[in-house]
Amino acid sequence: MNSVATSGAPDMQELFPYADGPRLASAAPDTGSIQLSWQNGDTTQLPWLWLRDHCACAECRHPQTRERLYIPLAPIADAPEMNVIDGHLRLTWADGHRSVFHGGWLHQRRPEVALPNVLPEASAWRDHFTPERIEHAAFLTEKGEQAWLTAILRDGLALLTDGPLVEEEVSRLAEKIGPQRATNFGARFDVRSKPNPNNAAYTAVGLALHIDLPNWHHPPDIQLLYCLQNGASGGESLFADGVRVVEALRAQDPSALRTLSETPIDFRFQDETHDIAVRAPLIDLNADGSLRELRFNNWIRDTLHLPVEQMNAWYHAYRTLWALFHSDEHQLEFTLEPGQMVAFDNRRVLHGRRAFDPNSGPRHLQGTYLDRDMLESRLRVLARQLH
Amino acid sequence: MNSVATSGAPDMQELFPYADGPRLASAAPDTGSIQLSWQNGDTTQLPWLWLRDHCACAECRHPQTRERLYIPLAPIADAPEMNVIDGHLRLTWADGHRSVFHGGWLHQRRPEVALPNVLPEASAWRDHFTPERIEHAAFLTEKGEQAWLTAILRDGLALLTDGPLVEEEVSRLAEKIGPQRATNFGARFDVRSKPNPNNAAYTAVGLALHIDLPNWHHPPDIQLLYCLQNGASGGESLFADGVRVVEALRAQDPSALRTLSETPIDFRFQDETHDIAVRAPLIDLNADGSLRELRFNNWIRDTLHLPVEQMNAWYHAYRTLWALFHSDEHQLEFTLEPGQMVAFDNRRVLHGRRAFDPNSGPRHLQGTYLDRDMLESRLRVLARQLH
Repeated sequence: MNSVATSGAPDMQELFPYADGPRLASAAPDTGSIQLSWQNGDTTQLPWLWLRDHCACAECRHPQTRERLYIPLAPIADAPEMNVIDGHLRLTWADGHRSVFHGGWLHQRRPEVALPNVLPEASAWRDHFTPERIEHAAFLTEKGEQAWLTAILRDGLALLTDGPLVEEEVSRLAEKIGPQRATNFGARFDVRSKPNPNNAAYTAVGLALHIDLPNWHHPPDIQLLYCLQNGASGGESLFADGVRVVEALRAQDPSALRTLSETPIDFRFQDETHDIAVRAPLIDLNADGSLRELRFNNWIRDTLHLPVEQMNAWYHAYRTLWALFHSDEHQLEFTLEPGQMVAFDNRRVLHGRRAFDPNSGPRHLQGTYLDRDMLESRLRVLARQLH
Repeated sequence: MNSVATSGAPDMQELFPYADGPRLASAAPDTGSIQLSWQNGDTTQLPWLWLRDHCACAECRHPQTRERLYIPLAPIADAPEMNVIDGHLRLTWADGHRSVFHGGWLHQRRPEVALPNVLPEASAWRDHFTPERIEHAAFLTEKGEQAWLTAILRDGLALLTDGPLVEEEVSRLAEKIGPQRATNFGARFDVRSKPNPNNAAYTAVGLALHIDLPNWHHPPDIQLLYCLQNGASGGESLFADGVRVVEALRAQDPSALRTLSETPIDFRFQDETHDIAVRAPLIDLNADGSLRELRFNNWIRDTLHLPVEQMNAWYHAYRTLWALFHSDEHQLEFTLEPGQMVAFDNRRVLHGRRAFDPNSGPRHLQGTYLDRDMLESRLRVLARQLH
């Protein structure tokens, strides 16, 4: 038999605050479950097995790792003894095991209401969308970092300004959030031009809108591009919001949206040491029709391998989406200044750039990728602290 | 107007071999398309726009990066002039642009047949499944690496043997394939016990079967565990094949499979600096009912947040799946010896270990993760070379 403190608020091994909320007033037996009522009139019902499974004692939930140790391998046949003391639920199970639940923790977890969630919903860009701007110094504060993370998850893009002109600053900022995501191009990459370029990688041509690495099963989630030099004329950055443009496509040509979202095609990059390929639709929608992710990148479209009677319809749909993305209405254009970093959701927001004159001055960006999980995690941790 | 070589086999900027196959015999006009016939009797039809889109000349496909430069933004209104010369298709478009297609390359890409694919299908374990064993020295050859990659993609698990007892060998082997995938636990991790452990991380308890990090949107694809020391008694490694066990669940209790695959639940890890969470079903199935991925990890199941009337059914289904995974019939058990490395598909094959006696000797594994894309890519590159 475990021992539980008999006074004081129970510790649910849960770092997100749960002590707010109304006081638990009473518990009453029901068939295989317990009815709970709070002083504000809220009620709920929780099965015995659910309660047993969520016991937070040191035997059932690891006191250091907070991970679940209890494994719900048998139904619970007998009603526990129950008491509500000081607004918390105390149960004694038939085998003598005791569980204590904080009334506020249970209130947060009523099946009838959504769990606490601090992540913003994705919000489509509107006309004259202006990215959230966060100064580098502000980003280093909890409030500023929270604003930056919120903007990226909500708008798919945020601008950091007034940063230092030092190499690798992009990696330092990234690693405040999480480990850099490495790809076949390394963990941190340079986008650089030089006067009189002597290498194809340093070309200065315009880049049509695209996402990076749609030929991977899981393309990079978040891209950071930090500007160190931008003395060339031209080279404006271009962005377009996939959430908005997919809605525009749905309104203008729903059959094109169906074609692009239901037809898997091939994406592929090949060189002497790699052949990275995936077959997936260009637009992936959630069950509710909202955008899950885009795979838009003309350079690494591989052979279009479809029944011949579907090919012209696919090209028509592709052209239609291309025109929507590249229309003035949907393109955000600005010049990234030295000391600025743009961060964007690589699977939602397309990026590109205008051509520039490489003989007019140096242009040097450093970039890296982050996993979305790490941004969401930071936002949850900050919400805990700023609660 | 571009210039194309008028003799010799055309270069399609394609590294996978395509010159084999029957000789292209003839081309004939059709409505908006061209009919092709090969000498072995195979035929196909390809639309003008498809052909224009796949032109491999230096203007249309980058000669260094092999990426597509042509953007199919307009329908093709006029029939090209066509010739078959030396078994290859030569087209001259109305605007004067010329395209040349290798007859073997076109034959590989007939819409009626599957594209070349060197990746094995996933194959469920059978009774007395024995993992493919590849010696460390063999792995360093192309044939051995190919066998290792094929086994992991087919069986979800492979064993490397007779490796050196040196720290970081797991990272060296991993980076032959691709960059290590970093998580909140770092890029390379230690699973270590010491006699008289003084830290909870060095416990010696048995670990029930699980996948790592199902609380991430995209859990690590492939896990490598390299054994440096295993002098403790106990500590046998345990594995079970998700493909096989999901089929067993479908046969035994299809309603439990439906419950687990259609009910998103929450997974979550929280500590002082992280709160990494995702809501997803425990079993994710492809449209054809086959397994896409598992999220099976009792430690980081978060609050079960479901309508109360679904809870007992979910627990019943979970118990049923748990029992199938942990049955003798489905568990592969062996002792990982020093110098051996087990690699497995973390989203398909569950892993665990028996308890061991930490006072009986040292046990030290080093582990890391790889992206599946990198294994598939290596296998395609090796197939090119071993063709």
